[in-house]
Parts: sequence; C-alpha cells; structure tokens
Amino acid sequence: MKINKNYLNLKDSYLFSLIGRKVREYKEQNPDKEVISLGIGDVTRPLVPAVVEALSKASFEMGNKETFRGYGEEQGYGFLRQAICGYYKKKGVDLTEQEVFISDGAKSDLGNILDIFETDNTVLIPDPVYPVYVDTNIMDGRKIIFMNGNEENNFLPMPDYKVEADIIYICSPNNPTGAVYGKEALKEWVNYALKRDAVILFDSAYESYIQDEKLPTSIYQIEGAKKCAIEFCSLSKTAGFTGTRCGYTVIPMELIRDGVPLNKLWLRRQTTKFNGVPYIIQRGAEAVFSDTGLGQIKENIAYYMENARIITDTLKKLGIWFVGGENSPYIWLKCPKNMLSWEFFDYLLTNAQVVGTPGAGFGNNGEGFFRLTAFGDREKVITAMERIKNLML
Amino acid sequence: MKINKNYLNLKDSYLFSLIGRKVREYKEQNPDKEVISLGIGDVTRPLVPAVVEALSKASFEMGNKETFRGYGEEQGYGFLRQAICGYYKKKGVDLTEQEVFISDGAKSDLGNILDIFETDNTVLIPDPVYPVYVDTNIMDGRKIIFMNGNEENNFLPMPDYKVEADIIYICSPNNPTGAVYGKEALKEWVNYALKRDAVILFDSAYESYIQDEKLPTSIYQIEGAKKCAIEFCSLSKTAGFTGTRCGYTVIPMELIRDGVPLNKLWLRRQTTKFNGVPYIIQRGAEAVFSDTGLGQIKENIAYYMENARIITDTLKKLGIWFVGGENSPYIWLKCPKNMLSWEFFDYLLTNAQVVGTPGAGFGNNGEGFFRLTAFGDREKVITAMERIKNLML
Repeated sequence: MKINKNYLNLKDSYLFSLIGRKVREYKEQNPDKEVISLGIGDVTRPLVPAVVEALSKASFEMGNKETFRGYGEEQGYGFLRQAICGYYKKKGVDLTEQEVFISDGAKSDLGNILDIFETDNTVLIPDPVYPVYVDTNIMDGRKIIFMNGNEENNFLPMPDYKVEADIIYICSPNNPTGAVYGKEALKEWVNYALKRDAVILFDSAYESYIQDEKLPTSIYQIEGAKKCAIEFCSLSKTAGFTGTRCGYTVIPMELIRDGVPLNKLWLRRQTTKFNGVPYIIQRGAEAVFSDTGLGQIKENIAYYMENARIITDTLKKLGIWFVGGENSPYIWLKCPKNMLSWEFFDYLLTNAQVVGTPGAGFGNNGEGFFRLTAFGDREKVITAMERIKNLML
Repeated sequence: MKINKNYLNLKDSYLFSLIGRKVREYKEQNPDKEVISLGIGDVTRPLVPAVVEALSKASFEMGNKETFRGYGEEQGYGFLRQAICGYYKKKGVDLTEQEVFISDGAKSDLGNILDIFETDNTVLIPDPVYPVYVDTNIMDGRKIIFMNGNEENNFLPMPDYKVEADIIYICSPNNPTGAVYGKEALKEWVNYALKRDAVILFDSAYESYIQDEKLPTSIYQIEGAKKCAIEFCSLSKTAGFTGTRCGYTVIPMELIRDGVPLNKLWLRRQTTKFNGVPYIIQRGAEAVFSDTGLGQIKENIAYYMENARIITDTLKKLGIWFVGGENSPYIWLKCPKNMLSWEFFDYLLTNAQVVGTPGAGFGNNGEGFFRLTAFGDREKVITAMERIKNLML
C-alpha cells in the first residue's frame, strides 16, 4: 500500500498558528492591554432572521413524517438552484438549473473540481493568494506557475501570452488583497483562456461586497466566459454562512473540453462522491435569495463595508499605500517604512495592540504587505484605528 | 487543458432509472393497481424528537450574536467527536478525539479517502457491492480486482493469500446483501491486511442494525485492526440522516504506511479541501448519541427490523434462499425458478405489484439475486408479503 507521495511535498502553514502564539505570548506579558484583532477572515454578525426562520422551520419539517426528506439530488434541490438562477438573472446572466451545483462551500468545490482534470495540466495561480489553490494542486502533483501581483499592477496581474497555462485561478474580489478586476481586465483573461483552450476557475466568494456597479460580480458578465470559466461562490461571506456551510458552483453547458461537457463530468463526480447539502441548510440558503433575505444581508454587508471605510480613511490619512476595502472586506496595505510583513505585525501588536495578517503568509509577493479585515466589531475597529493614528501620525 | 480521461471509462448506471421507467410504464397501463416499493434504499421515518430539538435550538443560536458560530474545525466540533468516542467506548473500543473525523456522510469520505493513496495501488472490492467503491477507483485509474460473494460463501467472501491487494473494501452489514461478517471472519481479513501491509476500508454504515451481540459492530473490536483499517460510518441509516447529512470516519493513530500516519494525511486533506459539517447539523448529530436520542433511534430501528422479520418470515415460508434481514435492513434473495434478476423484477411487478432491486445492478455476482429493503411502511410491507405469498405459495 503506497500513500500519495505528493502530500509529502506540502509545506505546513504556520501562519495562523504563529499569529496565535505571538498574540498569546504578548497577552501573557501584558495582561492589562486589550488586543484587537483585525486579522480574522471570519464573519462575526449572526445569521439574518429570514435564514434562521427557514432553518428552524425546515428542522421541524424533518421531524414530521409527512414533510420529512431523505436523500435529495446530489447537485441540490431545484428550489435552491432556481433561486440562484434568479440571483444571476439580476446580474444579467442567464443560467439553467442544470448549470448550478449546490455544495457545502467554495473550498470543497475548488479542491474537488481538480478530480475532473488530468494531473499533467499546468496551473497558473496568482501570488499572493488564498493558499488552498496551491496546496490542492501540490496534492495532485500538477505543475504550478505563478502570476505576479504587485504594487505596479495594483495586485491585478494580467495575462502573458508567453505563459502556457491550462488551468487559471482568478479570485476577484481577491483574498487577501481585496483587489477587483474590471470588465476589460477580465475580458483579457477570458480571451487568453479561449485562445489556449484553458479553463478559468473563478472564485467569486466575495462578489456581494462589490459596491461599484461598473465592476463585474460574475465572470459570466464577460462575453465568451461561458466557454472557458467555472465560477465558485459561497454564502460564507455573503450571508454569514462560514459555520452553516453552503456554496454553489456554476458550470455552463457550453464549457466543453476534449469533446466532453465539463458539466457532465462534474455531475458524475458529485453523484459518485457527494450526497448533497442538508435539506435544512438548503432551505436556509434559499431564504438568503428571497427579497427579505437579500435586504437583511445587505445590512450586514453595509456594516462590514463601513468598517472597511473607517480603515481605509485611516490609511489615507497616514499616507499608507493600499488596495481593497472599497469593494471588498479585505484591505491590503504596504507596510510603512519598508518593514517586512512580520516586522510590521510585531510593531502593530507591541505598539498599538492591533493584530493583522502578515502578507508573506499568502505567497512570496505578499512580503512587505499586510492584510486587515473589516469583519470585526465597529467599536473595536474605531479604537484600533485611533491607536494606529496615534502611533503613526 | 486535458480532462481526466479515466472518467470516460465509467459505465453509466441505468439501474434506478430503468426501475423508475418500468414502474412508470406499468402504472400508466394499470392505473387501478397499487404498486408497493420495497426497493428503496432510503429511510422513511422522520428524525427523532431529540434531534429535531437540537437542530432547532442550534438554528436560533446562529441568529444570536452571542451564540453565533463561524468557521469550526474542519474535522468537526469536539463535542461531537467526544460523543462518538463515547459511543465506541460502549462497543469496547477506545478512541481519542483526534482519531475521529466528522463528515457530511460516508459516501463523501469513502470517495475522498482515495486522495491520500497512490493511484497504482491495487484495490480489492466485493462483488456484489455498493457501486461507488468501483466508480471512485475507476475515476483514479486504479487496478480493481474482485472478491466473489456467492451462495456458497453466503455472500461473505474470505481472503485468498494468492491475491495481491493493497486496498480492501469491506462493507458489513453489506449493502446490498445484508450479510454480516462474524469476528473470526473479520480477524482473517485483518490478518491478511497486516501480512500484506494493506489497508482495509471498512464501511459500517449499517452497524446499528446488528441485533446479534456476538457480531462485531466495529472492525476495531478485532485485534490488530487499528494497524490496518479505516472505518466509515454514517448517521444516514442509524438515525434517518439521509437528507440531514452527517457521518464520521475513524483513522487510528497506529495506522502508519510509508512511515506516515494516515490520520495525518487525512487531516491535511480535510483541512485543505473541506470546511466541516454545519454547526447546526453537528448539534443534531450530538443529540443522536445522547441517552434520549439513542433510545429514540432504537425504536425506529426496531420498526424497520420488524419489517425485515415480516419479509424474511415470508421467504422462509416460500422456501426461498436468502441472506440478510436479521442484522441488516437489507434482504438478499435468490430469484425463484432460476429467474434472472430482471426477469424476477418484471414477474413481481406484473403479478404482485411489488418493486425490488435487481441484484445484477450490484455486480456480476448479483445476477439471479434480488434485494428487498425494510425501510417501508409497515402496512405496505404486510400487504406486499401477502401478495407475494398468494402468488407463489
């Protein structure tokens, strides 16, 4: 019996454990100081009332013989897939129910989608980025190349036709940088993918944070994208579902490679290795897309975006370079005085008792940068920004 | 961009769609006849009150800022893993929390576990069996060999030391045959696996249906199993969770191959490609393992097992050979008069308006056999058996 040796090539990520250890040690040595975390990538506002009501109602349905539900379709209930088609319709994107797959979250699908691709494809991944794109491909032994995000391109790297990539990851709004591609830039990526018969894996987990109506909230708003892109989205950040677990993946019927619709391959994968999302959770997700639900989640998003505005206002006052924060809950700043990521981490923790995430943890190009998030409490965000202003003005 | 060509080697399964079509056509031609299905592999009794209460309570917790939960640990909450350790303790099996992984069901984990094994391992799969063992390995291009279940071995094939297998699937109580391995037989499989340094993937999804206290309900009741077996279980059939989705996988720390604990590899897989089961669902699952919950699910299992008794009594009266039904919700019978599986299907549908599942759909060795399940309504089971007796006595 041989294990998958590719796993031995994975690097352990010490990012969040190291942050935890440093904060713990600081608190032990400074028990009187209040430490504020703006490093967290998790929501803090509870589920909205429309969702809680739907979850509770569905729970009781499951206890009643007449309304009990056993196995559902692996790809999700029609009621939820239709609600998602309706959500896309408002974005100007026409989808059929068969093109939408319900999942337990974007992370699962972004990892599992690789099952349907040969391991000898070359993968193009932004640097810096969400670490699981890299790790899931290392597990399969795929060749990984990087596209460089940096200050010059505002962390929005563009295609280079000399680069021979088969699978391209794009995350917009980006985690960790908060940078968002415009329509023209995405169109260039679609053209590149179409030219190479490549496939774009488009992670739109943060689309609901886009405020600027000119920015695309789905890659399918770009002509030609249905022939080259799979879109992954999640209710985690849209509706506070990080602990409730529901997402969706869109594979348009027009997306065909080697003569086979990828939709059909993914359907086969999911019906064989997945049994669908809990009925109760799908009812909660359906409520997100109701008029009441959409109104309620909009308030939560507005709350987080006001936090982001407070953070970016502070950075502007301090003359610190940053991207993100305007159409994203993430703010990506350049460490002042040319500090390295971890230097700035220690500096902020020690002098302002504020915790963020060192950019170096998201890839080589993240060195010298730092991520703040807007998911905290308003009062704490205000206090943290006052401390930073006092320290650095 | 190349697709995973192994997918092209998958055979489409027409089993359940063909059953559906035949039943539909029969009903159209015989609108006055009441057709009873004993083919269904899904539960029909609702969730028990203890579970519904926990689900509903957790739903409300998620709507409250103080009790809201974001991301949990990918491998599951401690409260549920501890409850499962407690459940195993009663079976005489000591497990630590780190050895238990919570999942959305056995099907997902049985498929995804293959990620941690090289594709050049040889896989040994019972015939007949649950079809996804075969399909998930075809997707990875692994070499598959079969062990023959048949009338002579009561559909409990034993190891053959001439066979060189690296990964061995055992499902006990078996789906579709309902056959259950005794301790001595399982010990032989464990010895074989230990001798070859192979790994047993032990599917115990139906363990809670075992009535005979001498039969093992976990492979870890067998000495040496912790060094060679991974156990997959689910609340789907134990507690009616087919639409609620929660299962668990046990990987003992002692299980080491190529110098690496498989527990560590699986933890890496899950933390990279999974984000855990919904908090709400984990609270529902926790309630299953409470004294109240265990008492309530026992009643449901007793209900199904009484259905099974009614079915097996009928088969005994008719002198029809069968296995299962005594420690399993599945009854696997030999088609009378040497009928083929689909012949008997048509015969029962046409003459008794009873639907079952042709054994041929579960592998070559299933030809000439037929599966009935105990998951139906009591009244309908009784009616179906009366019709069969009238037809065949």
